[in-house]
Amino acid sequence: MKVPWLGVGLVLIAFAAAWPFAAQQAPASKMPPLIVERQGSFFVGGRDLYSETLSTSPLYPPTGTVTVDQIYVRYQIPVDAIRHPITLIHGCCLTGKTWETTPDGRMGWDEYFVRKGYPTYVIDQAARGRSAGNSSTINSVKLGKTPLNQLPAVSEVGHEAAWTIFRFGPEYPKVFPGMQFPLDAQGEFWKQMVPDWSASLPTPNPTVPALSQLAARLNGTILVSHSQSGIYPFQAAALSTKGIAGIVSIEPGACPAASGDLQPYTKMPILVLFGDYVDLSPRWAPRLKGCQEFVAAANKSGGNVELVMLPDIGIHGNSHMLMQDRNSLEVADWLLGWIDRHIEQKPQKGVR
Amino acid sequence: MKVPWLGVGLVLIAFAAAWPFAAQQAPASKMPPLIVERQGSFFVGGRDLYSETLSTSPLYPPTGTVTVDQIYVRYQIPVDAIRHPITLIHGCCLTGKTWETTPDGRMGWDEYFVRKGYPTYVIDQAARGRSAGNSSTINSVKLGKTPLNQLPAVSEVGHEAAWTIFRFGPEYPKVFPGMQFPLDAQGEFWKQMVPDWSASLPTPNPTVPALSQLAARLNGTILVSHSQSGIYPFQAAALSTKGIAGIVSIEPGACPAASGDLQPYTKMPILVLFGDYVDLSPRWAPRLKGCQEFVAAANKSGGNVELVMLPDIGIHGNSHMLMQDRNSLEVADWLLGWIDRHIEQKPQKGVR
Repeated sequence: MKVPWLGVGLVLIAFAAAWPFAAQQAPASKMPPLIVERQGSFFVGGRDLYSETLSTSPLYPPTGTVTVDQIYVRYQIPVDAIRHPITLIHGCCLTGKTWETTPDGRMGWDEYFVRKGYPTYVIDQAARGRSAGNSSTINSVKLGKTPLNQLPAVSEVGHEAAWTIFRFGPEYPKVFPGMQFPLDAQGEFWKQMVPDWSASLPTPNPTVPALSQLAARLNGTILVSHSQSGIYPFQAAALSTKGIAGIVSIEPGACPAASGDLQPYTKMPILVLFGDYVDLSPRWAPRLKGCQEFVAAANKSGGNVELVMLPDIGIHGNSHMLMQDRNSLEVADWLLGWIDRHIEQKPQKGVR
Repeated sequence: MKVPWLGVGLVLIAFAAAWPFAAQQAPASKMPPLIVERQGSFFVGGRDLYSETLSTSPLYPPTGTVTVDQIYVRYQIPVDAIRHPITLIHGCCLTGKTWETTPDGRMGWDEYFVRKGYPTYVIDQAARGRSAGNSSTINSVKLGKTPLNQLPAVSEVGHEAAWTIFRFGPEYPKVFPGMQFPLDAQGEFWKQMVPDWSASLPTPNPTVPALSQLAARLNGTILVSHSQSGIYPFQAAALSTKGIAGIVSIEPGACPAASGDLQPYTKMPILVLFGDYVDLSPRWAPRLKGCQEFVAAANKSGGNVELVMLPDIGIHGNSHMLMQDRNSLEVADWLLGWIDRHIEQKPQKGVR
């Protein structure tokens, strides 16, 4: 009986070793072709900045004007779309890749939502991914023109710390029982992580006014945030509620203060969504509590705000990266159902 | 007669002011829907690195392991593709955005090639865009653990210098006569530019072994480079010619030395392509000369290498950013014709 089992084991090992290749070559389930009316990319926001320390290389002059603080946006619009566009906003130390093909090679929400009829916009936060940062202060410090302590605040989060932050388990490398994150492919997930320069950016993060501009242009979009970006759609709504058809806040790093001005958050349906194991996390339990206080206060002020814990609706085992968990499309289906129940469909005159 | 002309003028001004909006809302020419068999993204390459200065923020621990040097790859595969995949590799101070929607809102080569039947892969170079860099040295210098002169080499190129480098004109803001770059939308082009950390990376750039891995996986791809990345496909071919079906070097920053080992470049068809105004550019004229010497030497060694100046085949006015010029699809058609004439089609068993 040993030989067949050994054979299976070898096949699994071979698949794991070759899996990024396998991911592009042998999709787990054959899907029909994707048909899009239009796709493309553009930028929103941005400002010009003059610097005398753009470079210390002989190849490029030190002085000149650069454009920073814009956000990169990539979009796909399905044929005959009649639903509100969805805008996907990634969290800390990640980029728009968050929403694309999962680490173990399954379809990301960016494509799934399009297949379900939603125009879908994926952004890179300001100073992240394809959205330019400004590195000239580094050269200024190097040249002695700026004090050392003015070096920009930049953080990378290591695998070990990320393990706990993303709630794969209580501590690295322990795993919560029933964990849905595809940890077999964790090596591919770590490749998604990038340095985070947001602490060196103005407040509010330039992503916020850019999202506000984007919402106005799209004439009605659902802003879907994750983690670090959780507060951005709320801050955008505080600037202007124009074009914000709804807010979905997935595991927000912070909700608005319950004691603050809650009027902007009474103007659109809002969902705050958490995964599993939150009460086991010293990092996330207090954040959940803050959001619960916000939701209660906003509803008292006339809002239509809901907080959902996935285990409470029978979906178990989700990490902080629930859009990449093995049951990510089950979560997506539930989320799209929530959107359909709470946000009225309309022909996208502004987009078509 | 003045009133109608005035009206046209106002419409043009209004269009220019609102154009990023217009770009997503009113495509210049109505295209049929895009049908793709499969799309997605993944990483190639990467190595783990341990650091004790990942962060100076109280939010994140300073020690841990990060993964760097991988390249982000986004791909689309048309239905029933029978042609070689094309891999698009951007140049200095830019990202994969180079090949997407043009600054004035026209279709990029990334989509056009898919519509023409080519599986198309767009990368972000290592330490650029969605491919993680490593910022821990900045924190190490900040903490006094590493000398100031070890700060990473990073350059931004200002609009003024880029104007000359990209050959929009002889010097900022003069324009070459007949210029095809959509300078009306230059503000959107500047937003594509990002800091360039490549001078702080190992040699060869980690993009090179990653491209070599990607080519082997795709089992036959045409590596299309631009500018700074011009040397990368040649360096990848020197590592291994496996999977490199052809090289298209668009306005390379450098060609291989004519005096070096040219054998790897005799194993696949190679095209070196330049736009217009090259002889007017003190930056590009010597680079062209170096490439001419390489092409002559490689052909003498038995290679199949061609150098084409677009004006010589009747296509005029092209800048260094010819994939974004107003006649970009005319250039694309010619390029695809060259590929079809020089590189045999085959069913993409490896990809399907």
